[in-house]
Amino acid sequence: MAEKAGYDFDALAAQVRNSPFHRWLGVELAKLDDDGIEILMPWREEFVSDPEIRYTHGGILATLIDLAGDYAVAAKLGRGVPTVDMRVDFHRVALPGPLVARASVVKIGGTLATAEARVFDGDEKLVASGRGVYLTLQR
Amino acid sequence: MAEKAGYDFDALAAQVRNSPFHRWLGVELAKLDDDGIEILMPWREEFVSDPEIRYTHGGILATLIDLAGDYAVAAKLGRGVPTVDMRVDFHRVALPGPLVARASVVKIGGTLATAEARVFDGDEKLVASGRGVYLTLQR
Amino acid sequence: MAEKAGYDFDALAAQVRNSPFHRWLGVELAKLDDDGIEILMPWREEFVSDPEIRYTHGGILATLIDLAGDYAVAAKLGRGVPTVDMRVDFHRVALPGPLVARASVVKIGGTLATAEARVFDGDEKLVASGRGVYLTLQR
Amino acid sequence: MAEKAGYDFDALAAQVRNSPFHRWLGVELAKLDDDGIEILMPWREEFVSDPEIRYTHGGILATLIDLAGDYAVAAKLGRGVPTVDMRVDFHRVALPGPLVARASVVKIGGTLATAEARVFDGDEKLVASGRGVYLTLQR
Repeated sequence: MAEKAGYDFDALAAQVRNSPFHRWLGVELAKLDDDGIEILMPWREEFVSDPEIRYTHGGILATLIDLAGDYAVAAKLGRGVPTVDMRVDFHRVALPGPLVARASVVKIGGTLATAEARVFDGDEKLVASGRGVYLTLQR
Repeated sequence: MAEKAGYDFDALAAQVRNSPFHRWLGVELAKLDDDGIEILMPWREEFVSDPEIRYTHGGILATLIDLAGDYAVAAKLGRGVPTVDMRVDFHRVALPGPLVARASVVKIGGTLATAEARVFDGDEKLVASGRGVYLTLQR
Repeated sequence: MAEKAGYDFDALAAQVRNSPFHRWLGVELAKLDDDGIEILMPWREEFVSDPEIRYTHGGILATLIDLAGDYAVAAKLGRGVPTVDMRVDFHRVALPGPLVARASVVKIGGTLATAEARVFDGDEKLVASGRGVYLTLQR
Repeated sequence: MAEKAGYDFDALAAQVRNSPFHRWLGVELAKLDDDGIEILMPWREEFVSDPEIRYTHGGILATLIDLAGDYAVAAKLGRGVPTVDMRVDFHRVALPGPLVARASVVKIGGTLATAEARVFDGDEKLVASGRGVYLTLQR
């Protein structure tokens, strides 16, 4: 029997908002198509890492990579998937302002999936990129 | 001329608290010795990823790995270092409660440093582990 | 003064063949354009990991990811760059036969660069993918 | 019913030698105890990456990290495990000479395991370190 066909935009957007941490972050699904997903995140003053330079904390960028990759996989499966591991490369500082994360599936299998994600600032400059591995296995 | 000898406990603890995101997380330096550092993080309701199972969001655990590794390097150098990249392996769900991150330096060089970190729950169960690469180069 | 404009195909192909380990692997540059590079690797019996299933050893795939990413960066700079770190995701077994690695630059900076690479088998099936960080800084 | 108790030294040493690529590398199990394993690798001229500086190719170091981590897990389980993904940090060039890899299990579960490994040169200097994730699930 075939696996459920995946989430449509409204169903995935509801999943994104379902998480208390996502609501604190303010992340919202902005786009969903065959190529992947796009997540928007508005600015919060608490994101600041260094009070002088005021760049966004790496943990916030890592969170965006993780969740965007996760929803790229979830979009295909129609269900959430736990993260096995992730990797983030930081490319430049993200100064205060909204960020957008774009993610797509690299490989989806019956046990594991890999997705990649990139985070851009308001000038469409790449601030971070990475990939995550997610457990697709249903126990 | 030799590089500054490193941070003592109070100076490093002040660095940890200096970051607005760290104050939101509530992280505090708990230990600093030759082997590395220990960071404590109390629980916040906003950390919840899934409202039913109520486990801690992977982005929070990734943040802890990143910052603990970073301060393990900073402790040796007596100055902060930007993260180049990081990797996190998630080992088990972290249910609501305080977490502790322990980090140590793997290799410190004049251009880059690598540190590793592990995150434990209140029962001393390993919930996540990983490593980060940090830029030690002074421009 | 601007940095050297990069390698042309023949110059980069010569770089690839210049390494004794690359000659043992048999890797050859197959393509170089603005989007990145392509490396071909013929089969060698010594690549076998498991004598029964006869799949290619993960270390061989990791090597391809590392070197393809490296040459994607080198192609832009006109000089070789040391690998800082790398990450490989293994997607399916690679049975005996030639492999192709395609790599492109994610971000190139004055200190560090990130590149990503994918390895495909003779049926154009994705067998591995990953990324590397390379030191572009000239001391 | 409990899982098989693990490999003893001779059984694991035979596993290491069973792989054609491992025989080409010349890797041999040197130690096995509760804390992990140690693998020795003699020098081969084909390992050279750069013909002038003559350092060992990063792919060879990555291979050592992968296989050492893999056997650290296999030692506990008494069976081989496929690598899901791996990450390697390169710390210094490894000039011609034997290398030793030491690996230990970070976490072993019923679906996945994480192991970490470090590679040292003949002067006990750390040349590379990293970690791998392995599939322990039995289908």
